[in-house]
Amino acid sequence: MADPTLVVIVPIAGIVALAFAALLTRYVFKKDTGTPEMFAIGEAIREGAMAYLKRQYKTIAIVSIILGAIIMGLIEPRPWVGAAFLLGAFCSSLSGYIGMYVSVKSNIRTASAARRSLNEALMTSFRGGAVSGFSVVALSLLGVAGIFYLLRLGLNFEVDEALNGAVGYAFGASFAALFAQLGGGIYTKAADVGADLVGKIEAGIPEDDPRNPAVIADLVGDNVGDCAGRGADLFESTAAENIGAMLLGFSIWIAWGGEVGGELAIGFIFFPLIVRGLGIFASMVGVLAVKMRNEEENPAKALNRGYFVACALSAVVFYIAAQQLLGDGYLYFFAAGIVGIVLSIVIVYITQYYTAGEWRPVREIAEASKTGPATTIITGFSVALETTLMPIISIAVALLASFYLGTLATPALHPDMNLLYGFYGTAVATMGMLATAAFVLAEDTFGPITDNAGGIIEMSKQPEEIRRRTDRLDALGNTTKALTKGYAMASAGLAAFLLFGAYFERVAMIKENINPGTPISAAQLGAWFHVDLAYPEVFVGAMVGGVLVFIFSSLAIRAVGKTAGKMIDEVRRQFREIPGIMEGTAKPDYAKCVDIATVGALRAMVLPGILPVIVPLALGLSGAYVIGDSFGHDINGDGIPDDVTFMMIGAMLMVGTIVGILMATMMNNGGGAWDNAKKYIEAGHFGGKKSPAHAAAVVGDTVGDPFKDTAGPSLHVLVKLLSTITLVFVSLFVLA
Amino acid sequence: MADPTLVVIVPIAGIVALAFAALLTRYVFKKDTGTPEMFAIGEAIREGAMAYLKRQYKTIAIVSIILGAIIMGLIEPRPWVGAAFLLGAFCSSLSGYIGMYVSVKSNIRTASAARRSLNEALMTSFRGGAVSGFSVVALSLLGVAGIFYLLRLGLNFEVDEALNGAVGYAFGASFAALFAQLGGGIYTKAADVGADLVGKIEAGIPEDDPRNPAVIADLVGDNVGDCAGRGADLFESTAAENIGAMLLGFSIWIAWGGEVGGELAIGFIFFPLIVRGLGIFASMVGVLAVKMRNEEENPAKALNRGYFVACALSAVVFYIAAQQLLGDGYLYFFAAGIVGIVLSIVIVYITQYYTAGEWRPVREIAEASKTGPATTIITGFSVALETTLMPIISIAVALLASFYLGTLATPALHPDMNLLYGFYGTAVATMGMLATAAFVLAEDTFGPITDNAGGIIEMSKQPEEIRRRTDRLDALGNTTKALTKGYAMASAGLAAFLLFGAYFERVAMIKENINPGTPISAAQLGAWFHVDLAYPEVFVGAMVGGVLVFIFSSLAIRAVGKTAGKMIDEVRRQFREIPGIMEGTAKPDYAKCVDIATVGALRAMVLPGILPVIVPLALGLSGAYVIGDSFGHDINGDGIPDDVTFMMIGAMLMVGTIVGILMATMMNNGGGAWDNAKKYIEAGHFGGKKSPAHAAAVVGDTVGDPFKDTAGPSLHVLVKLLSTITLVFVSLFVLA
Repeated sequence: MADPTLVVIVPIAGIVALAFAALLTRYVFKKDTGTPEMFAIGEAIREGAMAYLKRQYKTIAIVSIILGAIIMGLIEPRPWVGAAFLLGAFCSSLSGYIGMYVSVKSNIRTASAARRSLNEALMTSFRGGAVSGFSVVALSLLGVAGIFYLLRLGLNFEVDEALNGAVGYAFGASFAALFAQLGGGIYTKAADVGADLVGKIEAGIPEDDPRNPAVIADLVGDNVGDCAGRGADLFESTAAENIGAMLLGFSIWIAWGGEVGGELAIGFIFFPLIVRGLGIFASMVGVLAVKMRNEEENPAKALNRGYFVACALSAVVFYIAAQQLLGDGYLYFFAAGIVGIVLSIVIVYITQYYTAGEWRPVREIAEASKTGPATTIITGFSVALETTLMPIISIAVALLASFYLGTLATPALHPDMNLLYGFYGTAVATMGMLATAAFVLAEDTFGPITDNAGGIIEMSKQPEEIRRRTDRLDALGNTTKALTKGYAMASAGLAAFLLFGAYFERVAMIKENINPGTPISAAQLGAWFHVDLAYPEVFVGAMVGGVLVFIFSSLAIRAVGKTAGKMIDEVRRQFREIPGIMEGTAKPDYAKCVDIATVGALRAMVLPGILPVIVPLALGLSGAYVIGDSFGHDINGDGIPDDVTFMMIGAMLMVGTIVGILMATMMNNGGGAWDNAKKYIEAGHFGGKKSPAHAAAVVGDTVGDPFKDTAGPSLHVLVKLLSTITLVFVSLFVLA
Repeated sequence: MADPTLVVIVPIAGIVALAFAALLTRYVFKKDTGTPEMFAIGEAIREGAMAYLKRQYKTIAIVSIILGAIIMGLIEPRPWVGAAFLLGAFCSSLSGYIGMYVSVKSNIRTASAARRSLNEALMTSFRGGAVSGFSVVALSLLGVAGIFYLLRLGLNFEVDEALNGAVGYAFGASFAALFAQLGGGIYTKAADVGADLVGKIEAGIPEDDPRNPAVIADLVGDNVGDCAGRGADLFESTAAENIGAMLLGFSIWIAWGGEVGGELAIGFIFFPLIVRGLGIFASMVGVLAVKMRNEEENPAKALNRGYFVACALSAVVFYIAAQQLLGDGYLYFFAAGIVGIVLSIVIVYITQYYTAGEWRPVREIAEASKTGPATTIITGFSVALETTLMPIISIAVALLASFYLGTLATPALHPDMNLLYGFYGTAVATMGMLATAAFVLAEDTFGPITDNAGGIIEMSKQPEEIRRRTDRLDALGNTTKALTKGYAMASAGLAAFLLFGAYFERVAMIKENINPGTPISAAQLGAWFHVDLAYPEVFVGAMVGGVLVFIFSSLAIRAVGKTAGKMIDEVRRQFREIPGIMEGTAKPDYAKCVDIATVGALRAMVLPGILPVIVPLALGLSGAYVIGDSFGHDINGDGIPDDVTFMMIGAMLMVGTIVGILMATMMNNGGGAWDNAKKYIEAGHFGGKKSPAHAAAVVGDTVGDPFKDTAGPSLHVLVKLLSTITLVFVSLFVLA
């Protein structure tokens, strides 16, 4: 039933995607760089961003190499896992670097293009963002597939061991992504908060005013936080979810008889790779379709048109891949893929409802601003908590629907495989969500490019009319950034279940001592997919998962508060000590502010970055070597102490993931809602700019900043990291 | 090994406790009521509070009767469960009422006593608070024991069914408590926020100034929120945890052979009742020990002395009860009880560290106030998240230790009972924490009494020296209120595990169709204590548990924001439209503000109050009748569809409980820390009162208000309610 020769599409798609990214880069770079003044500002941003990235990658490299060495040492018989880890960390960082490199060159060109037409500015910024999107998706796909092929075909490893290598790659990618997202997130918000609080509120100068000493740091931050950070985030998402899906495909293959009788089911292992390869072409067409019909059209419409083209083509691609690879029940899997695509669209609308000024949530916050900052925060926090409801319901429905569709595909010969097929249904739905990843990431990176372009226009004192053009793009960029976060979080939620599945599949492989060639029944596998709540260790594991998310968020938010405090002191000092800044006769010391943000971010990212690695590792090792034996639990009374460690880790994974998704959704959407409540007031409601309501709304926006751009996005990565780390280290905790 | 004749202690202890409460009431009521002016203010508070309570109880009665009828209808063969539900709701409300009645009479007498000496004021307020403490504990104990005895001995029911009646009682108590805590919490904070924001910040008048139209509503709120609400909260805590422990004792009894051979193990069922009865005497001595050595002594020392006396005597009581009732391994259970007592002390110190001005967390927030309200909120939120760490670690250690001690008590004859004995160990530890409940509740109610006394002193313009006395007591009351919340939350965390145990015990009873007289092996019971993560429904159940906590918190916080907004508008209106208020020549319209808070609270409490009832019920019923069959999961391939519903509900319970504990701890401690950061600045740091840092700190305090006094404490009740509701309705979801 399966046609694995289709795999040839994978390297082709990866290379085509990179070539496409190169073409887009050429398109953008051919644009002019505007006036000398604009160029100078752009250069200052570029220099600051690159300098920061260099230092950040140095730190990440050091920590990664140390951790890579530990991994190689700990899971000693498998050195390739450590090597794959380093490669994953490298590729994740590389894709962040590429995205940012193009981004800091696109901002100035977008600013210049805005002087001519809105459409040209849109095309320049969106295509600049698409470079990031396609590089990330291509590198992630090529890495996973490359390692798998190299180990399996090149070095003739067992399928199982080849997949282990790919898991190491995903772990490396998550690990580097966590640091990139944390460091970038702290940098951008410390600079933003510092610039806003002193500049806007105390000195009363507008945003992006060149008299503000923190303005360059703020513009640099948009790049290192949003471009480099989110790029690394989606890089590891696609890698981790791809591998999780392959592991579930592997279970089906094994249940069919593995090497012995599973030839026909091999398509289940390759499907995730192939469908993503094909999905790249769908996103490509979607990106090319983004073009405004005329200067009056709403640019959001142009983006949506492209997005729907990408979604429709992805559906076609799913049909082809499922039909070729997934056996007789392929129509059910195709339907599961559609569920994923639909979920990604639904989440976009939900996020819009909660974070855009047209609807009740944002207006409620704006209304509360009339009675001061305290009620703004109280109401905003209430809205933030509320925004978790609809996404969770949507994810739950998609999860149940795709699982159900998967079970319907169960072969009549093997009714006992219904669970495995159900799991695979959710995996296919996740692939459906990720099919448009390149397009979505392009929309995301488009945000900071337009934000920067607006800053350059403002700082170089261009006419009001041009500023209005970039303002329109900037507002659109804020929306697309919020949507991407909703998308990333929903895909994490849907993927969480399949990653649990992958985790328990690994446990079963170890426990049942499965060798390739030994067929295993689905019931044998299924017997390990459980968590016994009768063990106190399991409850403790669950509590640890929850508290880890809280402490991680605490550290991320505190880092912003602390660094922003230093920034505020510095900006106040410059206003006080450097005469002539406010009159525009003296230039502020931008470099000093850039330095404060850099040092603050690099220092503060280390502890929250290693915490999610240390905690599961410590919990698992103490479970296996300390707690497990001494308690001597023996539920069935067979005289053999029960193994509770794998369940303790499973509970940590489940609760950590769910709490992480809830907190991230709350923070992303809450921050977005506060931001837009401020914009709603600035649009002239409740007294408009400079009214007391506006001052209160600025406080709300500032509080929301570390929520939506530091802690929230970092939690996306944390959730995925918890899955990949348990997959990598499972053989350490779970003793056969 | 067991001596169940000790049960006679239970009614005796209950009646003695009520008599003791009556004596304390006499002691307080004999005190004078101060000047006519003071009396008039006291009367205004009393009237407002009683009027609110009357309306609140009317609403609760209506909802309870409707729900009681539904329960009777749904679980039809057992009408006594519905009757017990109504009795539980009634007793819970009654104990709230008693506590508040004495409280609103104690405040004025404390104020008057403060004119003479600090010690007399301390004794008056603390003993007034103790009335609440002992009434609550006595009514809770008498209710649980009374129902159990009535059904078992009076009506000759099976033990199992008698326990079901007691579960209904606990559910009724939780249900009424949730409304009381929500309504009271919304009332108090809407009034407080409204009074503070306009009075302190806009008009620049001090707290409790008679010119503030919202001042009476604010003082009323302290009573209805803290006294009535917390009383109902601890009422249901002690009831629910007591019954959970009895259910686990019942499992042991059944495992020993039930009616047939379990006579010796019957002590395990009675132990929780008996030890609580004895614990009342320990708390009694503790309360009597509270007395300042001289006027210069720190009143906190006097309270601590009493608390340690109560703890030490509780330990003695535990030794006696364990030795009489818990068989050969009683020393291990005694040790588990000590673990619980020690945990309650440890939590007190941890809470103090996070919320008192002497240490890093509060100072960090105060420091952040220098850079404005935004950094105050950011840093405070980071601290709030951080405060979950140490409590969770402490609970985890206590849980593991007490479970381990329980397993050590496993009888040599029955090694397979180690799991049941382990569970019972955690139940004993929970009883240990609750042994001093009456004392702790006395400390809690002491808070609003002194707060009110301070308000009366301020409003009646007493000399500065007297105000300083009540200020000292008020500050102490703030601390004890924070400690009680930490205590309530930690006991909920510890109890959560035993309540899971009780839930799965019920499932096993239904699934194994256990009749009294049929012995059942521990392994048979243990086989049902699990949650299979392979089912998507289980993951969905877990997500629902988490999102329920978020939505509930959102509704509670929003209610405060909305009602406070109305209060602010009204106070502003009065300042604007009633001439002479600020000069003190015209009296503000206090009644209007009282009315706004009353109406706002009653309206807003309904939705969050019924949500935690509807969601588990809907989930369970849809699991049993919609999802379960149509998916046709069949893990072991035996051709019979697996029952996933009980696991789905179990997952909801686990994640809802853990997320609830985390969120409640975060909100309680975060709110306390913001409050004390403000007090720290008021003590003269960073510019003191009226400085910009102080204004920022007031915003932080205001944001913390609904956290620590509305959403946080309501979440305590929610967590317990989830347990009792699943216990009551388990027979609806889980089909034999």
